[in-house]
Amino acid sequence: RDERAEAAARAHHLRLTKPAGSLGVLEDLGAQLAGIAGVDPPPVPRRPAIVVAACDHGVVDEGVTPWPRDVTAQMVANFLAGGAAISVLAREVGASVVVVDAGVATELERHPALLDVARRRVTGNIAQEAALDLDDARALVEAGRALVSSLHAYGIDLVATGDMGIGNTTPSAAVIAALTGRPPAAVTGRGTGIDDAQLARKIEVIERSLARSGPPTDPMSVLAELGGGEIAVIAGVVLGAMDVRIPVVVDGVISLAGTLVAAGIDPVAADFVIAGHRSVEPGATAALEHLGLRPLLDLDLRLGEGSGAALAIPLVRSAARILAEMATFDAAGVAERSEA
Amino acid sequence: RDERAEAAARAHHLRLTKPAGSLGVLEDLGAQLAGIAGVDPPPVPRRPAIVVAACDHGVVDEGVTPWPRDVTAQMVANFLAGGAAISVLAREVGASVVVVDAGVATELERHPALLDVARRRVTGNIAQEAALDLDDARALVEAGRALVSSLHAYGIDLVATGDMGIGNTTPSAAVIAALTGRPPAAVTGRGTGIDDAQLARKIEVIERSLARSGPPTDPMSVLAELGGGEIAVIAGVVLGAMDVRIPVVVDGVISLAGTLVAAGIDPVAADFVIAGHRSVEPGATAALEHLGLRPLLDLDLRLGEGSGAALAIPLVRSAARILAEMATFDAAGVAERSEA
Repeated sequence: RDERAEAAARAHHLRLTKPAGSLGVLEDLGAQLAGIAGVDPPPVPRRPAIVVAACDHGVVDEGVTPWPRDVTAQMVANFLAGGAAISVLAREVGASVVVVDAGVATELERHPALLDVARRRVTGNIAQEAALDLDDARALVEAGRALVSSLHAYGIDLVATGDMGIGNTTPSAAVIAALTGRPPAAVTGRGTGIDDAQLARKIEVIERSLARSGPPTDPMSVLAELGGGEIAVIAGVVLGAMDVRIPVVVDGVISLAGTLVAAGIDPVAADFVIAGHRSVEPGATAALEHLGLRPLLDLDLRLGEGSGAALAIPLVRSAARILAEMATFDAAGVAERSEA
Repeated sequence: RDERAEAAARAHHLRLTKPAGSLGVLEDLGAQLAGIAGVDPPPVPRRPAIVVAACDHGVVDEGVTPWPRDVTAQMVANFLAGGAAISVLAREVGASVVVVDAGVATELERHPALLDVARRRVTGNIAQEAALDLDDARALVEAGRALVSSLHAYGIDLVATGDMGIGNTTPSAAVIAALTGRPPAAVTGRGTGIDDAQLARKIEVIERSLARSGPPTDPMSVLAELGGGEIAVIAGVVLGAMDVRIPVVVDGVISLAGTLVAAGIDPVAADFVIAGHRSVEPGATAALEHLGLRPLLDLDLRLGEGSGAALAIPLVRSAARILAEMATFDAAGVAERSEA
């Protein structure tokens, strides 16, 4: 992050025709974008891509979700056909959707917007074994990272993260518990909708998983022990955004688990992260606090897919565009306030 | 509001390929839009207009703001030249900006996007006299209402409200105190930035104004006694949206004072209102609670001009577009969850 460009953006904001600070979070966001791009005003992101990483999870065998596993592959087909929520929200903001198969159980039909980086079909059941071999976890992170480099080379100027994976709020909560030090009960939510008894069972499964994997060591090991393919790819996407110096807008609890892993691997990556929204999942708030991120939206979303990240993209554009296009007091001939 | 269309949108949401309720506030917003349009899916608003009403206020003589009065007219010129925050934010969402002179002190140059409906230059100092004659207040509300009818006839499918007026958080807080019954200290904020002593003075001025005008009677009288030209025009814009059955996205504390007046005149108007954001002004939260509105954004904005309403427009479009374009479980061949 370029601190000089960030400071220039903050000073620039004071000269624009509005009371100082009156654009609130948009001013901080504009300064962050300047810091990311290394220039004030920062470029307005016009060619975003939403990377939706998909994976199936062995832990669904523990009964943590009411949805059948087949839905992961069915939803990937829905993404590619343009009928899912993220398809619609991406169109509205002019974003492309790139789907990454990071370990979907069912064989998927080839599609130009589907990238297969899976190292194994279905992760291990984290209550009983590691989700991924350490080598596989590393390879999946690397794949996410390389994908962003390619996208950037093709002209993409902002990435957003999304996920699909039946049962994936369970490994996400486990990763968040391990990396924030909070107890499972404090970071586990109802995902797509479960009752009190199912929630208690889910927390117990996460507690068992953490007990099995032992005290967390490095973030890559936590990812391998407790995470999943989509979480690994998302961590890689966040690191990739840092590599090519573009903003990455992250979605809800699964994306934030990946962001925690990325920031654990390289703390500088957090400078490039914009939190799209606050999911209703308690693990999302825990991760946001741990990362020191303020989310742009708070709309009671709990869908995933990158939906909350896509919805935030217009705010990112507006924050950049304010710096690029607003008149200064001098140029507009507007008087400033008298000093108190 | 068409309750059948609203119910149809809610039922429609249950068939879309996502967990029930997982799009949170966007689902409620989609249902509201269907109720407004009388059809599900509701049309996606593509031609929004932001009505920015401007006025000067006699109460600035009481020392409630550090900004010189001339800034109101200077900022109107800035809006029309395209250099203000609202100009930039409107461009980003493809909205036109219509500026309404509702009583700016300085004579303004004519401009095709400037509508002069002023009945008097500068409102009365509300600490000492009524802001407006009752007839003037009625005429300004009617002008806002007629403007929306014209805009709708020209193809505008969504209106947003904005304001400009040095000192106008003071009459707004007075109107909100009168119409919500809350004490001035609970609804008065720092506006564009004042210190503790100035805030205490501002509260005292509002208390004096309320004491002078006596117990609030009907909303039009409250508007005339304590309001201002831009508040009146905004109230009219909200009523006008109801007249032509289009959504109206309201901005911060000044717009919410106008919305309270509109809902006081005709409670049905509130059904057409979408709260763009939660301003940091405490009066905004008081008005939102009184109206039962949940704001879409909460970004610590305190600029006015319609900035928080403009920023919310992409969310409104997304809510409508989700209903128009998402696949259903049946059509996409996606399995549904098993019952618990």
